Amino acid sequence: MSQTALLIIDVQKGIDHYSWGRRNNPDAESKIKTLLQQWREHEWPIIHVQHVSTEPQSSYRPGQVGCEFKDEVRPLESEMVIQKATNSAFIGTHLEDILRAKGITELVITGMITNNSVEATARMAGNLGFATVVVEDATATFDKEDIRGCWHPAERVHALSLSNLQGEYARILSTEQVLEHHLKELSYVGL
Amino acid sequence: MSQTALLIIDVQKGIDHYSWGRRNNPDAESKIKTLLQQWREHEWPIIHVQHVSTEPQSSYRPGQVGCEFKDEVRPLESEMVIQKATNSAFIGTHLEDILRAKGITELVITGMITNNSVEATARMAGNLGFATVVVEDATATFDKEDIRGCWHPAERVHALSLSNLQGEYARILSTEQVLEHHLKELSYVGL
Repeated sequence: MSQTALLIIDVQKGIDHYSWGRRNNPDAESKIKTLLQQWREHEWPIIHVQHVSTEPQSSYRPGQVGCEFKDEVRPLESEMVIQKATNSAFIGTHLEDILRAKGITELVITGMITNNSVEATARMAGNLGFATVVVEDATATFDKEDIRGCWHPAERVHALSLSNLQGEYARILSTEQVLEHHLKELSYVGL
Repeated sequence: MSQTALLIIDVQKGIDHYSWGRRNNPDAESKIKTLLQQWREHEWPIIHVQHVSTEPQSSYRPGQVGCEFKDEVRPLESEMVIQKATNSAFIGTHLEDILRAKGITELVITGMITNNSVEATARMAGNLGFATVVVEDATATFDKEDIRGCWHPAERVHALSLSNLQGEYARILSTEQVLEHHLKELSYVGL
């Protein structure tokens, strides 16, 4: 599985700010930690993606507590961190070049939030030709008001976001399925 | 408004195949036609995006009727057509280079389907720094089953897709708002 990278997107302290509202998947961080431990044990590639905002009012500005990684997923000195200022981890970064240079062809995507940076990154990953998995219980989102003024629970926003990805851009699997899959040393290509 | 391009995504005959299911916004094609006429009259830039599938079973393969443009939006000989084989019009094409070379900084996006190629293209457009508008009544989608097995009406899928874009990647406007805006020769930057 050395060609399968674990991507951890925007798991930073700012995600716990009350202004985000009600969230689903409270265990997402512990699921990501489980995956991270598995990847570390096997010395598979790990890429931490950190949102570093350029907006004056954002809690994700450099130096703000909100910009720091959450404790569960804090990168080791030896692990790669890619900083981004926009939603997709592929835009304004060297992520694609790094993956190609390392011969990484498969991505397992986790992090925050499902229907924003995770979905934007997974759509591009799939379209760029990477065999892409999004781990449904290792990502989370929040209740959302739509453009008509209707509120949707986080569970629905999450499910519809992952459904947009499923089969078109990525495979949607659980943490348990990913771990089981990796123990068998299977590829995601053609899964 | 010479720096504002109209993008018409995947408005091809294949979209009328019954297998897509129940659709919203039946007037989307006529709205797109209205915008196209406006752009033609003013000689503003127009880019037609055509999905050309490489999948053997797809009705969007070259030579299939499904791959042809719908009559309402058939490009003139002089108009640019960009063919794509994936969801985002920016991947595997020269769209970004073309826009930069022409000095186009603003995009008005229309076409099919809201939560797939339109959303994938709009997310990238916004993240790449283009001032991006998605025209809510000039795009459409279909009823969708989510990964939990729940069915959602096209109207909800459409609204949540546009809500993911709103404020983060793009502005969501109606055809009427776009026409009114253009008559005043306003820019979308900072709108």
